[in-house]
Amino acid sequence: MLTQQEPIVALATPPGKSAIAVIRLSGQDVISIVNRVFKGKNLTQQPSHTLHFGTINHQDQPIDEVLIALFRAPNSFTKEESVEISCHGSTYIIQKIIQIFVNLGVRLAKPGEFTQRAFLNGRFDLVQAEAVADLIAADTAIAHKTALQQMRGGFSTQLQSLREKLIHVGALLELELDFAEEDVAFADRTLLEELVKELLSIINHLIESFQLGNVIKNGLPIMIVGKPNVGKSTLLNTLIQEERAIVSPIPGTTRDLIEAEINIGGIHCRFIDTAGLREHTTDTIEAIGIAKTKERMQQVSLILYLFDLAEESLPDIQKTVVELDLLHIPYIKVGNKLDCAQPALLEALSNQDYLFISAAKRQYLTQLENRILELFHVDRMVGTDTIVVNARHHESLVKTEDALSAVLQGIAQGLSNEFLMIDIKRALYHLGEITGAITTEDLLDDLFAKFCIGK
Amino acid sequence: MLTQQEPIVALATPPGKSAIAVIRLSGQDVISIVNRVFKGKNLTQQPSHTLHFGTINHQDQPIDEVLIALFRAPNSFTKEESVEISCHGSTYIIQKIIQIFVNLGVRLAKPGEFTQRAFLNGRFDLVQAEAVADLIAADTAIAHKTALQQMRGGFSTQLQSLREKLIHVGALLELELDFAEEDVAFADRTLLEELVKELLSIINHLIESFQLGNVIKNGLPIMIVGKPNVGKSTLLNTLIQEERAIVSPIPGTTRDLIEAEINIGGIHCRFIDTAGLREHTTDTIEAIGIAKTKERMQQVSLILYLFDLAEESLPDIQKTVVELDLLHIPYIKVGNKLDCAQPALLEALSNQDYLFISAAKRQYLTQLENRILELFHVDRMVGTDTIVVNARHHESLVKTEDALSAVLQGIAQGLSNEFLMIDIKRALYHLGEITGAITTEDLLDDLFAKFCIGK
Repeated sequence: MLTQQEPIVALATPPGKSAIAVIRLSGQDVISIVNRVFKGKNLTQQPSHTLHFGTINHQDQPIDEVLIALFRAPNSFTKEESVEISCHGSTYIIQKIIQIFVNLGVRLAKPGEFTQRAFLNGRFDLVQAEAVADLIAADTAIAHKTALQQMRGGFSTQLQSLREKLIHVGALLELELDFAEEDVAFADRTLLEELVKELLSIINHLIESFQLGNVIKNGLPIMIVGKPNVGKSTLLNTLIQEERAIVSPIPGTTRDLIEAEINIGGIHCRFIDTAGLREHTTDTIEAIGIAKTKERMQQVSLILYLFDLAEESLPDIQKTVVELDLLHIPYIKVGNKLDCAQPALLEALSNQDYLFISAAKRQYLTQLENRILELFHVDRMVGTDTIVVNARHHESLVKTEDALSAVLQGIAQGLSNEFLMIDIKRALYHLGEITGAITTEDLLDDLFAKFCIGK
Repeated sequence: MLTQQEPIVALATPPGKSAIAVIRLSGQDVISIVNRVFKGKNLTQQPSHTLHFGTINHQDQPIDEVLIALFRAPNSFTKEESVEISCHGSTYIIQKIIQIFVNLGVRLAKPGEFTQRAFLNGRFDLVQAEAVADLIAADTAIAHKTALQQMRGGFSTQLQSLREKLIHVGALLELELDFAEEDVAFADRTLLEELVKELLSIINHLIESFQLGNVIKNGLPIMIVGKPNVGKSTLLNTLIQEERAIVSPIPGTTRDLIEAEINIGGIHCRFIDTAGLREHTTDTIEAIGIAKTKERMQQVSLILYLFDLAEESLPDIQKTVVELDLLHIPYIKVGNKLDCAQPALLEALSNQDYLFISAAKRQYLTQLENRILELFHVDRMVGTDTIVVNARHHESLVKTEDALSAVLQGIAQGLSNEFLMIDIKRALYHLGEITGAITTEDLLDDLFAKFCIGK
């Protein structure tokens, strides 16, 4: 792989006034470049991983008193020679220092360029590099844990093991090919089939985990439907108070007005307003049928169907459930106002996967939260299995699955090894895409452009 | 002086997502406290000014991969044992790591507490400590230069020299006192008088520099007055375009609506709206007289009186100038629309300290800018003399001046040495307040509370 050595510079801390700002440089000769404007010890003679106090000067005028951290290749984040300058967190000083280095021929780093160099220099694979950005963006315990696990190589190890197994399968087939002229065929294709099936099962499991991964990374859009006065606002307010983790409402930049964002078990649940629904009709059952509502519902991952245990009738509720079934979106049936429920209705609905709560009295809300987490396997998967959180990984896994399914089909149809090898190689290619064992320049540029500047 | 040793922790970089965040710890045993949650090398055995890669763990779960910078006492900013942790700039991680240390008994640092400890441990004096905050806030070259010079001890050295001279004066007097019983008086009080006058002259110069210092630090509020259609908006827009350094208008939190903020020669000129003025009357001359306008004008440091060279009459202009003289606020008389001026008016006003411009044609705007800078001695003082930017320093200097004037008066009245010593000591006290040679706990608490957290 190529090692990019052109020196780059960027502010690595957020802009704004603060005690400390860190300016990062990486690339060829950055220590001696910094040394040209540093008044203090001769940096070029200092060992790696040491700190040096002095001033950055510009045309013999001091710009700031700074602390210089030296990293000699390959013992740095990028594996290149690197310097981190801790200066005072003043916008003026930051701009001035960066300008000094730009004048000395150091280029402004592109977003993610430091991480990209770390990847290109083999510090970690692409999954780990992507996890760095996820780690910075993580704002719940689960998102943080998942990102950190992937950054530290958990998922990469698993993918590596899958690739090795697949290479083993390929090797078996190639071996047969080598002996093909002698007309020696391996007697037993059952072993081959079993290996591919085992791989498929693991990959399917990873693909399924993306449903949760996506929820961890992007939050869970939830729509509460139900007739007016059924207690929707009470439920939301109560959940908010319980969790005390309100994220301020996102302003109306999205198509849907998000009413509240609540952290449930580490998942950001975004409750979508159904005001649009109520404008058209006050009858939920009819409303569900209309096209506009369906369109809105396509954007949610979960529907909470809230009905009134005190007021609504069994046939009405059952009719809504039938309509909900047709949407093919996960939903939870929740009877509210348990404290003044009709006994007959309660009796009829028991043992039928209905939840009963009282939002006003704060009863059984934990059960509702747990049901949400169960639906997305949060309880089962977090902390044990690998969770795919990255849409790019998901896409490559789906392509790998497709290739492996073709292999299975080929075996069933008695295709020759040459034809099976085409799909095996395809599967290897897409698996390799994930960790970056196989990459294209376009992919890398797109991928790292999503990073922060200075990372 | 007391050395505070209780360990403290704070985020030293701005909040927000970024490549790097720096968490700072200082105080007793912080290296061994960090070592308890650090997985990597044994930090307690590492030398000062070294960097160490590893993970911060919480209950055996990794929280982040970090870089630890070690500083052993007294070779740190605070002169205490200190650690700086560079972690990923994620809000979740930052909160988690700080929480870990709080749980281990480390206290959250108060704003400015690191700098306060540095001061208390004698790393620098109070003038230098205050300059740290000024340096971070500096957003122009002049403000930056002034703050950096003071942080590096320029002003402190000057104050020290003044104090030594004053102590010398005091010593002469004390010497006389010692020999008082023998009735030996120093023949010549002229020497004493000259010394005090010399000190007074330096202190007066410093006091005067505060007018500029205040402008450097807080910007220059300017009001443009003049009849409607005299070209006020055109002038503002032209200045903005020339400077290309518009600071976004400050929202209406201040009493005055600030129309534009323009950087002229490194000074933030804040143009104050005169809309209120025009609402009352369209006649500027009358308007200047009314109380409300006068009140608004008290808040500005400079008035630009803009009149129309093409339309206005000499008596009108002269009448306004008389009114302006009564305000005792610096003002500049600017005739606009030079390109279509009445020749007789131009003739009459020449050699009378009037500036002529054409805002629309962008003519002679540099002359106007230079006149503004001259009025505040920006050209003369910046880069050579010490400029007092701090209101606290100004106050102490005024008190010192008062005490020294009393000494002079005492000499003139032939007061005895004992009485002169009272005022000499008073002068020494107030000079000492500035550098912190003389301090009170209240002063320190107030002073450092204005700092950033983490500094």
